[in-house]
Amino acid sequence: MAKYVFGIDVGGTTIKCGLFEAKGTLVEKWEIPTRIENGGENVLPDIAATVDAKRRQKEISPESVLGIGIGIPGPVRDGKVPVAVNLHWGETDVAKTLGKLSGYKVAAGNDANVAALGELWKGGGEGHEDMVMVTLGTGVGGGIIIGGKVVEGAHGAGGEIGHIHASDDIEEPCNCGNRGCLEQVASATGIVRLAREELSRIGDEETELRDDDLSAKSVFDAYKNGDAAAGRIVNRFAAYLGTALGGICTVADPEIIVIGGGVSNAGMPLIDIVGRYFREKAFSACKMTPLVLAKLGNDAGIYGAAKLALDMVGA
Amino acid sequence: MAKYVFGIDVGGTTIKCGLFEAKGTLVEKWEIPTRIENGGENVLPDIAATVDAKRRQKEISPESVLGIGIGIPGPVRDGKVPVAVNLHWGETDVAKTLGKLSGYKVAAGNDANVAALGELWKGGGEGHEDMVMVTLGTGVGGGIIIGGKVVEGAHGAGGEIGHIHASDDIEEPCNCGNRGCLEQVASATGIVRLAREELSRIGDEETELRDDDLSAKSVFDAYKNGDAAAGRIVNRFAAYLGTALGGICTVADPEIIVIGGGVSNAGMPLIDIVGRYFREKAFSACKMTPLVLAKLGNDAGIYGAAKLALDMVGA
Repeated sequence: MAKYVFGIDVGGTTIKCGLFEAKGTLVEKWEIPTRIENGGENVLPDIAATVDAKRRQKEISPESVLGIGIGIPGPVRDGKVPVAVNLHWGETDVAKTLGKLSGYKVAAGNDANVAALGELWKGGGEGHEDMVMVTLGTGVGGGIIIGGKVVEGAHGAGGEIGHIHASDDIEEPCNCGNRGCLEQVASATGIVRLAREELSRIGDEETELRDDDLSAKSVFDAYKNGDAAAGRIVNRFAAYLGTALGGICTVADPEIIVIGGGVSNAGMPLIDIVGRYFREKAFSACKMTPLVLAKLGNDAGIYGAAKLALDMVGA
Repeated sequence: MAKYVFGIDVGGTTIKCGLFEAKGTLVEKWEIPTRIENGGENVLPDIAATVDAKRRQKEISPESVLGIGIGIPGPVRDGKVPVAVNLHWGETDVAKTLGKLSGYKVAAGNDANVAALGELWKGGGEGHEDMVMVTLGTGVGGGIIIGGKVVEGAHGAGGEIGHIHASDDIEEPCNCGNRGCLEQVASATGIVRLAREELSRIGDEETELRDDDLSAKSVFDAYKNGDAAAGRIVNRFAAYLGTALGGICTVADPEIIVIGGGVSNAGMPLIDIVGRYFREKAFSACKMTPLVLAKLGNDAGIYGAAKLALDMVGA
């Protein structure tokens, strides 16, 4: 009889859900809204309910479900979340609470770490054991995997590489309260910040970039067209990110670096330019560590959550 | 019947040796010279011989020896060394070769990583599982320990934190070939570099620092005396090191950071000033991560090597 796990990826607006066979095949994926009202009290009950409904719809017996894996947007340690701002949660024992609500074993992890595990299992890092994942979205997230296991960290901050200090030139504070975090110069928002700075000093130089239509995509599109101003922006972004990745390699020394998130839709030109700065700054033994694109897109979280559940039950 | 392990710490000029009871007590320590002539071919036979001689002298039966742990100045992966410059070694299967020569099981690791393991076991990190060790000596070494295990890294470069890019202002290349490595500004040599720069622009200002007697010790001594120039040097050093340690915490998020090596003889004033910059730059969840002094000094390597051997045999 086939065995199944559920992989759940909780975001601030939607909860992505996946039903997987234990061997790793995605059977079906769907989404439900994240109801954050009343301190997010409905989030875990809603997940238990949608899991139960899907199981019945697929005519899967409760005994065939090995467990649920879940990724949470916040620090997670031993299945517990001290606080998850985007869900309006205070301290929550996710594994225990969802376990009681669903009747299944539950493994919980930080969403970025869980997405990294997904990319390791079935994505850009497949076949590896030691991997660094960097997610370039609205912010910069990360996940460090060593020996096939996510580094959660003593304070649930393992892989929070968006908050590496990257620049002494940023006056505005980061969401974390510090100034000059990698996230402020290498996220989609960060690229727009660099673009604004560039446009403010460009003078008469021609550029296809427009003040009122700046985005990571418009900058990379212009860069691919050979736009000089966009080239300077992308080089600055790549220098910050490549230098940070070099530093990360002197700590964790992974086999492979996987780059995902919306900004990575720029594709191989992004990998090439970041790789150039990475190889300039990385320690000699790590200069040839490959940089690759993530493969699972928005599904990395449900894949990783499913793998977390499988690892928990030793399947 | 008591069980024993040997902990060996191989340096470029001397080999430090320790005989330990399996429960962790150091029975005796001694040194032999490192004979690096002829491609260092005598190093492992010399170790096998001194281990055998000590065992006989102590009237320990061969059956009571659980194994040998050994730290090597070079990258180590699965007991093998691709190259160890200071020993004039090319590719060497340390664990296998010393195993054959001695008749015991052998566990090998990078010397900085092994010293970190020693500090975790019986030193500044005792009682912890997740620790970052930074060794401020002639260079800057490091060791990352997660879940009680050293992070060796895919290229044996785990914990090579001396080669984090720390400064864009250094023209001279580091030993590794890059420019601006942490080692160039935070080692004993690096502090002297910063001191030379400071003295070159000091003008008429009075200082107790003297061009012909600059060392990490003289700089910290002057700093403790309230010397203004020394204060600027120490603050610059501490900003580089504190920022790098902040970045390391966003990757590995340890429970504790242990600072050792000759420069750390400056003691608590060093911890205090580095901690100030660390807390300024570290991610919010990691700002309170304690910085402490290493405790084992030059014995960290033999302690860690002994622990490596004990972990290998599951004792």
